[in-house]
Amino acid sequence: MIIILKENTTEQEIKKLTDFVKSHGLTPHISEGVHQTIMGLVGDTSQIDIESISQLKNVEAVRRIQEPFKNANRKFHPLDTVIKVGNATIGGGSLTLIAGPCSVESEEQIISVARDVKKSGVQILRGGAFKPRTSPYAFQGLREEGIKLLLEAKKDTGLPVVTEIMDLSQLDLFADVDIIQVGTRNMQNFELLKQLGHSGKPVLLKRGLSNTYQELLMSAEYVMAFGNEQVILCERGVRTFETYTRNTLDISAVPALKKLSHLPVIIDPSHAAGIAEFVPSLSMAAVAAGADGLIIEVHNDPAKAKCDGAQSLIPGDFDKLAKKLRILKNAIQEA
Amino acid sequence: MIIILKENTTEQEIKKLTDFVKSHGLTPHISEGVHQTIMGLVGDTSQIDIESISQLKNVEAVRRIQEPFKNANRKFHPLDTVIKVGNATIGGGSLTLIAGPCSVESEEQIISVARDVKKSGVQILRGGAFKPRTSPYAFQGLREEGIKLLLEAKKDTGLPVVTEIMDLSQLDLFADVDIIQVGTRNMQNFELLKQLGHSGKPVLLKRGLSNTYQELLMSAEYVMAFGNEQVILCERGVRTFETYTRNTLDISAVPALKKLSHLPVIIDPSHAAGIAEFVPSLSMAAVAAGADGLIIEVHNDPAKAKCDGAQSLIPGDFDKLAKKLRILKNAIQEA
Amino acid sequence: MIIILKENTTEQEIKKLTDFVKSHGLTPHISEGVHQTIMGLVGDTSQIDIESISQLKNVEAVRRIQEPFKNANRKFHPLDTVIKVGNATIGGGSLTLIAGPCSVESEEQIISVARDVKKSGVQILRGGAFKPRTSPYAFQGLREEGIKLLLEAKKDTGLPVVTEIMDLSQLDLFADVDIIQVGTRNMQNFELLKQLGHSGKPVLLKRGLSNTYQELLMSAEYVMAFGNEQVILCERGVRTFETYTRNTLDISAVPALKKLSHLPVIIDPSHAAGIAEFVPSLSMAAVAAGADGLIIEVHNDPAKAKCDGAQSLIPGDFDKLAKKLRILKNAIQEA
Amino acid sequence: MIIILKENTTEQEIKKLTDFVKSHGLTPHISEGVHQTIMGLVGDTSQIDIESISQLKNVEAVRRIQEPFKNANRKFHPLDTVIKVGNATIGGGSLTLIAGPCSVESEEQIISVARDVKKSGVQILRGGAFKPRTSPYAFQGLREEGIKLLLEAKKDTGLPVVTEIMDLSQLDLFADVDIIQVGTRNMQNFELLKQLGHSGKPVLLKRGLSNTYQELLMSAEYVMAFGNEQVILCERGVRTFETYTRNTLDISAVPALKKLSHLPVIIDPSHAAGIAEFVPSLSMAAVAAGADGLIIEVHNDPAKAKCDGAQSLIPGDFDKLAKKLRILKNAIQEA
Repeated sequence: MIIILKENTTEQEIKKLTDFVKSHGLTPHISEGVHQTIMGLVGDTSQIDIESISQLKNVEAVRRIQEPFKNANRKFHPLDTVIKVGNATIGGGSLTLIAGPCSVESEEQIISVARDVKKSGVQILRGGAFKPRTSPYAFQGLREEGIKLLLEAKKDTGLPVVTEIMDLSQLDLFADVDIIQVGTRNMQNFELLKQLGHSGKPVLLKRGLSNTYQELLMSAEYVMAFGNEQVILCERGVRTFETYTRNTLDISAVPALKKLSHLPVIIDPSHAAGIAEFVPSLSMAAVAAGADGLIIEVHNDPAKAKCDGAQSLIPGDFDKLAKKLRILKNAIQEA
Repeated sequence: MIIILKENTTEQEIKKLTDFVKSHGLTPHISEGVHQTIMGLVGDTSQIDIESISQLKNVEAVRRIQEPFKNANRKFHPLDTVIKVGNATIGGGSLTLIAGPCSVESEEQIISVARDVKKSGVQILRGGAFKPRTSPYAFQGLREEGIKLLLEAKKDTGLPVVTEIMDLSQLDLFADVDIIQVGTRNMQNFELLKQLGHSGKPVLLKRGLSNTYQELLMSAEYVMAFGNEQVILCERGVRTFETYTRNTLDISAVPALKKLSHLPVIIDPSHAAGIAEFVPSLSMAAVAAGADGLIIEVHNDPAKAKCDGAQSLIPGDFDKLAKKLRILKNAIQEA
Repeated sequence: MIIILKENTTEQEIKKLTDFVKSHGLTPHISEGVHQTIMGLVGDTSQIDIESISQLKNVEAVRRIQEPFKNANRKFHPLDTVIKVGNATIGGGSLTLIAGPCSVESEEQIISVARDVKKSGVQILRGGAFKPRTSPYAFQGLREEGIKLLLEAKKDTGLPVVTEIMDLSQLDLFADVDIIQVGTRNMQNFELLKQLGHSGKPVLLKRGLSNTYQELLMSAEYVMAFGNEQVILCERGVRTFETYTRNTLDISAVPALKKLSHLPVIIDPSHAAGIAEFVPSLSMAAVAAGADGLIIEVHNDPAKAKCDGAQSLIPGDFDKLAKKLRILKNAIQEA
Repeated sequence: MIIILKENTTEQEIKKLTDFVKSHGLTPHISEGVHQTIMGLVGDTSQIDIESISQLKNVEAVRRIQEPFKNANRKFHPLDTVIKVGNATIGGGSLTLIAGPCSVESEEQIISVARDVKKSGVQILRGGAFKPRTSPYAFQGLREEGIKLLLEAKKDTGLPVVTEIMDLSQLDLFADVDIIQVGTRNMQNFELLKQLGHSGKPVLLKRGLSNTYQELLMSAEYVMAFGNEQVILCERGVRTFETYTRNTLDISAVPALKKLSHLPVIIDPSHAAGIAEFVPSLSMAAVAAGADGLIIEVHNDPAKAKCDGAQSLIPGDFDKLAKKLRILKNAIQEA
C-alpha cells in the first residue's frame, strides 16, 4: 500500500503518520520528492481499510499494491484447485459440461432433459428451483418441489446436480444437492456467503452484473475465509451499454481470473447471450480461451419454457455443440 | 406489447399465434406490411413473460409498450405517496434530511452524532449496524449491538431511525427500527423484498450499482405486491467507467423516477461521491432537481471511522450544508 | 509515479532500473519490503509513457501519482480561467446561458429563436451548421449556409455565437464564429484539437460518451499545449446501461472538474436528458452544483425540428426556466 | 416503426397523424386498445428521424423495428463480402492474420518485424504512422515518414499493409497503402467516413469505445452509402467498469455482427487486453467464435516500444500462437 502525502506536510506530521502505520504492524518507507512525499507500507495490508487511511490528515491519496484476497490468490496457492462431485471433476485443465433447463418444471421435463444431456456427455445437471425474477408477477420456480424433482433426475441418471439458493432459510433443502449456486444478484449477499463457507459443499459463484474480478474474488474469499475451499467462479456476462445481447460476455475473465486465482473458471454462455443462436459461438470461444467448463441451458421445448426460453438450446442442437466442443478441446490440447 | 413476425409467416401460422395470444386474455391487432407483419397485443400484459413470447415460432422480436409495474406506477396512482415516521414525513414536496454515521461504533459516538444532526434540523437518524463489506476481513458492523445503540440514540433524541438489513434472519431485531433499508447489493434479493412486503414498515430501497429505473421500480413492486405501500426510492450512484468518484450520481433519476412513479425519491450523495468534499455540491444539485430528501453520512471523527470515513462530513460542515439546503429549498419553492 | 517490482528482483536488476529511471531525469526512491520492493519516481513524470515502464523487466505494475496534465491543472493555475466573448464572460462564478436550436434550419427560424432567447437573458447563441448524425441518411445540417445564417442572427441580436466544427477542412468558415465547439464524437480527434490550439478562438470541448475526466482534461491539454488557453469544458451526459434517458448526466463532473482544473465547466442538459421535460430539473441541478453555465436547446417548433426535437424546449418554457435559474443562482450566492 | 399514442387521443388527431405518416411515403396500420392505440408504419423507414416522430403531438413513444442500415445489412445481401488485397483475402470463412508493431519506429524495426511475421504466415502487415495518443506529450508517430517506412516493408516482403488515418488532410499519403484503418476514436468522424467512401480503398473500421453494433454498422453504412463496399469491421474491446484489462473484449460481437451484416469481422486482441500475456487466449477465443481474422501487435523489443509495448507479443511468441491458431481453425472446420 502506498500513501501519497499532501504538499507541505511537516516533519512532525509525517512522524505522526509513521507512528500510526507502525501501530498497524506495518513498516513505512518514505520517499521525499520536490513536490510530493510518498510512503510505502510494507507488511500484510489485506486487513487495512483503504478508506480510513485516505481520510487521515495530510493524506492526498492511497493506492493498494497487494491484492486484498489471500485464500483465493494464486500467488499463495500456485496449483489449480480441482473440485470433485460424484464422478465429475472441475478445474485443472479438463472440460466439464454442466447443462439443463433454466427452471425445473415437471418430473417428466427434468428427467427427459437430464437423460438427453447425459447422452451428450454432460457431467453435471443444472436446473433452477428457486428462480430470481425481476418481476413479482413472473414464475418464481417450483421451489421446494423443484429441488425434489431435480433430485429425482439425479437418482435416475446418476448425474450430480447444481441449483441456485436465494436465501439462507432455504439451506436445509440443499442437503442432497451437490453444488450450490450463488446467482449474479446475490454475489455480494455476504451473510449467505458466510454460511456457505460453513456448508462444506462446493459453491458455484456467479459474477455480479457489474462486479470486477477483484470483487468476485473477494466474494470467493468470504466463502473460503469461513472454511470452504471449494469455489467455482462463473463469468456469465456483464452489463454494458450494448443491449443487442442480454449481457456482454467478458471472455478475458478466463485468462485474468486464472492468473489471479487457482480456482476453476467456467462460463455461462446462455445468460451472456440471451439468444440461443449465439450460444455455440460463445461456448467455442470459452473453451478456446481456456475455461474449465461451461454451464448451458438446454430445454426440450424452449417455446413453452417458463423462463429464459429464448436462450435455451434444444437437446439435438446441444448434442452437436457438445461434439464440437470435444473436438476443439482435443485440438487445443494437442496444439 | 408488440410482436414483429418473421418474413413469410403464413396465414395459418398467424392464426395459431392469435389463438395463443387470446388464450392469455389479450386482443391481437394485425398490421401487415410489404416485408413485415406486426401484431399489437392489447390488454394487461404486465404478467406476460416477454422471453417466452420471443421464443415462439415465427416471432422475430417483441417490444414491451406498457410498463411492467403497476402498484409503483404513477399512471395508476397520480398522487405522490407521503410516508410518515414519527414526526417526519417523506414525499410530497418537502425536504427530508436523513443523516448519521456510516456505522454505529459506540454509544458515545452515535448519541453525539445524533444530537449534532438533530440540532442541524435532521428529521431522521441513520446508522449502520449490519455492514455489507467487500472484504471478509473488514469491520462488519456491531450488528445486534449496533441496533441497540441506535435505538438508544432514538430514545435520547426522539429521532426516528433507519438502518440496513442484510438477511431475512435479522428481521426480528428490526422491531423498533422505523425504516428498514435495503442496500444496493440486495436490491434484487427478492426473498428479502417479499418478506419486507409483509413487514408493514417503510422500506428505503437503494438502487443497485447497475440497475435501471425499471428494475428499481420492479423491486419496489415486489414489496408493494406483498402488501406494503411504503417504499422510498434512493439513488446513490451507479457504476460507470469513471473511477475518480466512487460512483456516478445519476441525477436524472430524480425527474425520471418521479415521472414514472408516485413514490418518494431521495438521494445519497455520500456513497455517490465517495469524497466528502463533493457532498455539498451533489446535495445542492439533488434538492434543485426536486429530490424529496437526502441521506448523508456524518461522523464526529471521520479519520477514525470504521468505514467510509472518506465520504463523511463532520457535524460542523454538515450544519453549514443543512442551512444552505434550506435556503435553496425556499428559493425554489418561491421561484 | 510508483513502480512495483516483481518478487525476487536482484540488486543488480534494481540497479539497472534505477539507471534507466535517472536517464529520464527522475530520482528513484526505493522501499524494500518482505515480499515486494517499491520504487517511487520523483520529478516531472508527465512525459513518461506509463506503458513503456510497465513493460520493463522485473516490473510488476506501475501507478501514476501526478496528474499527466499541466496547463489545465488547477495545482499550477489556482485561479479560475475567465473567457470573454463579446459582452459575455464564462467562468469565475457567474452563470452564462447559451441557448438556441440544435440545427440552424432557416433565416427565419434562427433569427426568431435568437431574439426569443436574448429576451430571456441568454448571453450566447448556439446553432448547429455541421451536424454529426449517426445515420448517413439523416439531415446533415445546412453546413456552410448554416454558418452564414447563424452569423445573420449574430448581427441581428448582437449575441456572440457558438457552433460545432466536424473537420479541419471547415476551419476557414469559422472566422467570424465566436466559440468553436468540438463535439462528443470528436473529443479525441487530436489533429483537430492541435489546429484549434493554433486558432486563437475559445473552444467549447464536449466530453466524449465514455471518456474520463482525465481524458477530457488531456484533450483540453492538446488545445492548450498548442497555444490556446481558452477552453470551456462541457459535460453532456455519458453512456451507461440506463437507456430511459438519452445519456446519464454526470453531475459530479462539476465539482470534480473544478477541483482538478481552473477551466470553466458548463452543462448540456438537453443532450444528457434527451427529453425536454427533464431539462429544467437537470438545469437547476447543474447551477446548484456550481456549473459556470448551461447550453440548452431551444426551438420555436420542436415537432418540426430537423434534429433532436424531442429534447428542445419551446421559447416560452425556456423563459420560465431562465427566470428560475436566476432566482436559484441568487439564492446560492447569498447562502 | 411503431408509434404508441397517448391515452385519449381523439379520432381527429389520429387522422392528422396518419396524414403526416402518409406524406412520408409510409402506410399506417392502427391497433386500438382499451388504454392505448398503436400505429404500425409500413414501408422504408430507414430515412425517418425517430426523434422527430417522438416529438409529435399525442405520441407517447416510438419504437424502430427495421434496422436503419441497408448496404451493410445481411437481410439484403445474404452472401459474405470477401475483400481482396494483394494475395490476401478477408471474409468468407478464411482466417486472415494481420500483425505488426503498434507504431513504425525505424526502417530496421519495421522490416525486421515484417519479415518475422511473414515467416509466421501473416498475410497483411500493420504499423502505425499517425498515432492517436491521449497525451499531447506522448510520441505521436513518425507520421509521413512512418508511411514511407511501412511502404518499404511492403516492398521488402510483398505483404499488403494497413495503417491508420487520423484526418482527411492525410489522405494523399495513403495512395499506396492497401487498407486504411479508421481508429476507435474516429469511428463517428463522419466527414472522414464520407471521404473514405469515395476513396475506393478497403477500410478497416474499429468499433468505438462505447458504440453499439448498430452504430458501428451505421458508420460502415456511411462509407458504403458514399460508394465503397469494402469495409472490414473490427471489435477491439469496449469500455466498462472493469479496469484490470485495458478494455473488455466483446466476443459476442463476432456472431452478432455476422448475423446482422455480411461484412468481414476481425478481432484486435491486443488493444482489448492491453496485456501481452492474455493475447493468445483472446486470439484463440476469437477464431473459435468465428472471426474472419485477427489484428495483433508484434514488436521485436516491446520494452523499448514507443507505444503500447505492454500489449505487444515478441515474434517468437507470436509464431507459436500463429501455429496454434491454424490448428484450431482446421479442427473447427472439420468439426
